[in-house]
Amino acid sequence: MAITGVLRSALMQLRVLDLEAAVSHYVNIVGLDEVGRTEDGRVLLKGYDEFEHHSFVLRKAEVAGMDFIGFKVESDDFLSDLAVKTEAFGLPIAWVDANTDQPGFGRRLTVQVPTGHRFDFFADVELAEDRPMLRNPDIWQKEPHGMRAQCFDHALLYGPNSTETVRYCKEVLKMAPVEELLAPGGDGIVCTWLTSSNRMHDIAVLEYDQPGKLHHVGFKLEDWNAIGNAADLISINDVSLDAGPMRHGVTRGLTIYFFDPSGNRNETYAGGYAHFPDMPVRQWDFDQAGKGIFYYTRELNDRFLSVVT
Amino acid sequence: MAITGVLRSALMQLRVLDLEAAVSHYVNIVGLDEVGRTEDGRVLLKGYDEFEHHSFVLRKAEVAGMDFIGFKVESDDFLSDLAVKTEAFGLPIAWVDANTDQPGFGRRLTVQVPTGHRFDFFADVELAEDRPMLRNPDIWQKEPHGMRAQCFDHALLYGPNSTETVRYCKEVLKMAPVEELLAPGGDGIVCTWLTSSNRMHDIAVLEYDQPGKLHHVGFKLEDWNAIGNAADLISINDVSLDAGPMRHGVTRGLTIYFFDPSGNRNETYAGGYAHFPDMPVRQWDFDQAGKGIFYYTRELNDRFLSVVT
Amino acid sequence: MAITGVLRSALMQLRVLDLEAAVSHYVNIVGLDEVGRTEDGRVLLKGYDEFEHHSFVLRKAEVAGMDFIGFKVESDDFLSDLAVKTEAFGLPIAWVDANTDQPGFGRRLTVQVPTGHRFDFFADVELAEDRPMLRNPDIWQKEPHGMRAQCFDHALLYGPNSTETVRYCKEVLKMAPVEELLAPGGDGIVCTWLTSSNRMHDIAVLEYDQPGKLHHVGFKLEDWNAIGNAADLISINDVSLDAGPMRHGVTRGLTIYFFDPSGNRNETYAGGYAHFPDMPVRQWDFDQAGKGIFYYTRELNDRFLSVVT
Amino acid sequence: MAITGVLRSALMQLRVLDLEAAVSHYVNIVGLDEVGRTEDGRVLLKGYDEFEHHSFVLRKAEVAGMDFIGFKVESDDFLSDLAVKTEAFGLPIAWVDANTDQPGFGRRLTVQVPTGHRFDFFADVELAEDRPMLRNPDIWQKEPHGMRAQCFDHALLYGPNSTETVRYCKEVLKMAPVEELLAPGGDGIVCTWLTSSNRMHDIAVLEYDQPGKLHHVGFKLEDWNAIGNAADLISINDVSLDAGPMRHGVTRGLTIYFFDPSGNRNETYAGGYAHFPDMPVRQWDFDQAGKGIFYYTRELNDRFLSVVT
Repeated sequence: MAITGVLRSALMQLRVLDLEAAVSHYVNIVGLDEVGRTEDGRVLLKGYDEFEHHSFVLRKAEVAGMDFIGFKVESDDFLSDLAVKTEAFGLPIAWVDANTDQPGFGRRLTVQVPTGHRFDFFADVELAEDRPMLRNPDIWQKEPHGMRAQCFDHALLYGPNSTETVRYCKEVLKMAPVEELLAPGGDGIVCTWLTSSNRMHDIAVLEYDQPGKLHHVGFKLEDWNAIGNAADLISINDVSLDAGPMRHGVTRGLTIYFFDPSGNRNETYAGGYAHFPDMPVRQWDFDQAGKGIFYYTRELNDRFLSVVT
Repeated sequence: MAITGVLRSALMQLRVLDLEAAVSHYVNIVGLDEVGRTEDGRVLLKGYDEFEHHSFVLRKAEVAGMDFIGFKVESDDFLSDLAVKTEAFGLPIAWVDANTDQPGFGRRLTVQVPTGHRFDFFADVELAEDRPMLRNPDIWQKEPHGMRAQCFDHALLYGPNSTETVRYCKEVLKMAPVEELLAPGGDGIVCTWLTSSNRMHDIAVLEYDQPGKLHHVGFKLEDWNAIGNAADLISINDVSLDAGPMRHGVTRGLTIYFFDPSGNRNETYAGGYAHFPDMPVRQWDFDQAGKGIFYYTRELNDRFLSVVT
Repeated sequence: MAITGVLRSALMQLRVLDLEAAVSHYVNIVGLDEVGRTEDGRVLLKGYDEFEHHSFVLRKAEVAGMDFIGFKVESDDFLSDLAVKTEAFGLPIAWVDANTDQPGFGRRLTVQVPTGHRFDFFADVELAEDRPMLRNPDIWQKEPHGMRAQCFDHALLYGPNSTETVRYCKEVLKMAPVEELLAPGGDGIVCTWLTSSNRMHDIAVLEYDQPGKLHHVGFKLEDWNAIGNAADLISINDVSLDAGPMRHGVTRGLTIYFFDPSGNRNETYAGGYAHFPDMPVRQWDFDQAGKGIFYYTRELNDRFLSVVT
Repeated sequence: MAITGVLRSALMQLRVLDLEAAVSHYVNIVGLDEVGRTEDGRVLLKGYDEFEHHSFVLRKAEVAGMDFIGFKVESDDFLSDLAVKTEAFGLPIAWVDANTDQPGFGRRLTVQVPTGHRFDFFADVELAEDRPMLRNPDIWQKEPHGMRAQCFDHALLYGPNSTETVRYCKEVLKMAPVEELLAPGGDGIVCTWLTSSNRMHDIAVLEYDQPGKLHHVGFKLEDWNAIGNAADLISINDVSLDAGPMRHGVTRGLTIYFFDPSGNRNETYAGGYAHFPDMPVRQWDFDQAGKGIFYYTRELNDRFLSVVT
């Protein structure tokens, strides 16, 4: 296989304040399906186009935000090797046994990265029951609903020491920088979008003074028309809109941002170019950040800059 | 980088009967841009979203069809290594010096594969002048035209010994099979769609009695709306339509097929899922080929099956 | 009001062989809603964007086809006047009392037109419960489903003496011809598309040897994307596809044709220009009928020409 | 014909500060075509889907804004009758001879309405050279460009005594109110959207203290995808964006607002329902105006409320 090593971001555990309100939001509006619940009350969800047992977990907590983001890797051998290389890089690691807190998942390597986020890595996940068909496949097993989110796609992480987290992603995880937002005066990088494949990004990492913060989780939609449908559903269902529908300058993606009932920011997005590792990195001057993020209005709003969970 | 080795199909040299008619077709209708012409009269073209010097070459000849398909690889070292492995696999190789017949291209490894097609591999290509912007990029440098083809995307190759060509793609090129059309009775595979990345396919290979044949070259469009625009342009410009607009069962892509003035079949397509190498292969029974290719009508027409160049 | 007299086609009673199969088709796939059933077992349906009590009626019968098509007119006075003018034109009339076979409908004038079809006219219809909102309206009361048919839109009628039916539509109903298909050699008109408003057509009338035949009933969708979604639902639900997705030359509409379980042809269509009565009539030569109907393939298939109910 | 009397808004003469900048804007970006220029230097434009000689006129002036809006009516007899009825209503009239300031136009009745705007009415206009085809028509004569504006569609007028202008539109012009924005407390109407056909509006009239003001001129696009393309062109060409892409609650239309180089506000919009005069009027409470105009953000921005020309 020509996509090797880390394959993609494939798991997110999110903290929510009101569990049933969150389930209703992610199932009825975003369009994920509930796969099951754990004994400790967490809710397991997935997109209709994903093969894995689940990709998105809701946990009731006092404070919103993310517990961890998970990445699928090519093999268990790679996982062992990654543990060695991560320690050599200087980050502490730990292991989670198979089928403990994440039903259907094999053993997981967990790493605390310098921005204060937890990254999980795993090679083996059971196939979900409701997943893309394999023999004479129809385009779906059952009709998608709500915003028709196909999969959990990416997250934008805020935290300090972002340069070190990005260096870990590049040097150890072999992720490619796709686009970069330069610091004022071009002195350093404020935000890096990173991918393991053709995807626009698996994660983006932005320099911020508080550790472990989440700016948004992103779900993939089909196209601009699906973004419009998402906008309609946001308005009709009184979901709190953040920004959009619009296009990003960065990645050229089509997007709309909104909040779940606990204040975690969601993005549903579509389009964008296909990244390859031989492409030059695209860079944005700091004073062009507005155009880079909000390609149409060209002005970042305060809420977009300051609200994280 | 997590996409390693062979990166993607990135070059096609096509034989056409009437050069100017072909240029007009690929530029004014498909929407490629002319980059330049060689001393021996070949015309170099590219899509607006490609970085490389060119990706599509038209050569005047007595018989339509393809001269070769080219693949970009990660590095010149990989190229050297690929030569060794290809010979070990049992296929004859040759080298083409840099900047000879393909201006802007580094040295190329050429391989004659068992189906009678020529595969070229290269690591270095000059950046084109008219290509995606790198600093505070707009979504295009100049407005796309015609069908707005973004890039040369893939080709469907017809020839004998397809099993061997597919084995070479898998074992040496490390391409992943995405979908397969089974032979009647499930005894073997008639057609395999192969990719090096998230792309649905870089090539597909179908068993056929004559060697070196081309079923179609594919160009990428943005979405279903762009497929509709392509259909309008086909009708208004009296282009010979083959089939569509429609959806494929295979890859779930949205598509329309038509012919260039020399009878080479073109496809413009959009959508489809993102392939990852950990995905199970999707398979089609032979009697479901109609649904697999023509998802709406579910019937293959004779022209689609029999006309190749 | 500047749209006067006959407002639009607004009611269709259709004969089906298997009532429940038909209800499932029109509700689950086309996306109409069931409003109620009559004592004699007919099923009343409507589109989510219609105000009237119902617009589409299914009646179980031995032979598929249409019972009648109904038109809403501006006032009861106009209805009385229309009766006089219709008799003066030479067609027999009859009256149906309010709230008899069509619950919620005021009195209806019925006219047998020369092609053997029955036209009903009515001025008063109760508002449906589930209809567009009137105060601070959301874009729908409940999310549309299936193909998201907005309303019953038009019908294409086949029968003899079409010239006389068209003359009645023009002279008495004051409908405007939008487009015409000329007979071979330009000697007369084979088909006329007629409208009372900006709509592309309320009815079209085509010369045919058997009286009272129905070629298709048409439902309005939002746009080309909705046509694609209709195509997907047709394939996934094993609905019998006739032709499309495609564009018409006539009206420039975007369309897909398919059959209900009783063999009545359906069209879901979108787009097209807005007609005004000061526009010149657009005409098609007989040998261009293929392009006029099937703008992409430019060839009429036999099934499209010969299958009527 | 069932659309009678006043047919539609069909002419706008706009004042601009820099004529060539305005021509470039309306031709290269909005996508109108230049038809010709008058001896006094005005520029005549039209959309690719309009039949009339021209529909949009640019006049260089010291102050931006509108000179007048014109309406096409069914016949010259109707025009004579309209003059009598307008005087009886109490508004002063005047006549402009054929082929004077508007080449290709027959005689025009001009009326000064109570909000301080000038309405022109005309029955006869020469057909344009570049217009929809009439025999075996293709969907366009030459490929549309820029935003692909199909036609001048409507204008939103600001002025005092709006109730009287609306009463004239209803009682004399027989226009139908489609939607209404109620005053605070429901005491009166602040804005009325009025149509002569299925169109969402030919004009809207909003109560304002200064007479004869223009909020925006509207052009019709095909669908949501065309709105997205308009947004891209706005950003790439550094056009001043006002709001959108978004949906209106009022009319349910899809829209984007921006400014021409002289500060006149433009709207390109698509979609919306088809109005019929038997539909109940949809009403908006004053405190829901944000949702009515900006269906997604639900908040009017100051610029939208205060900037008029």
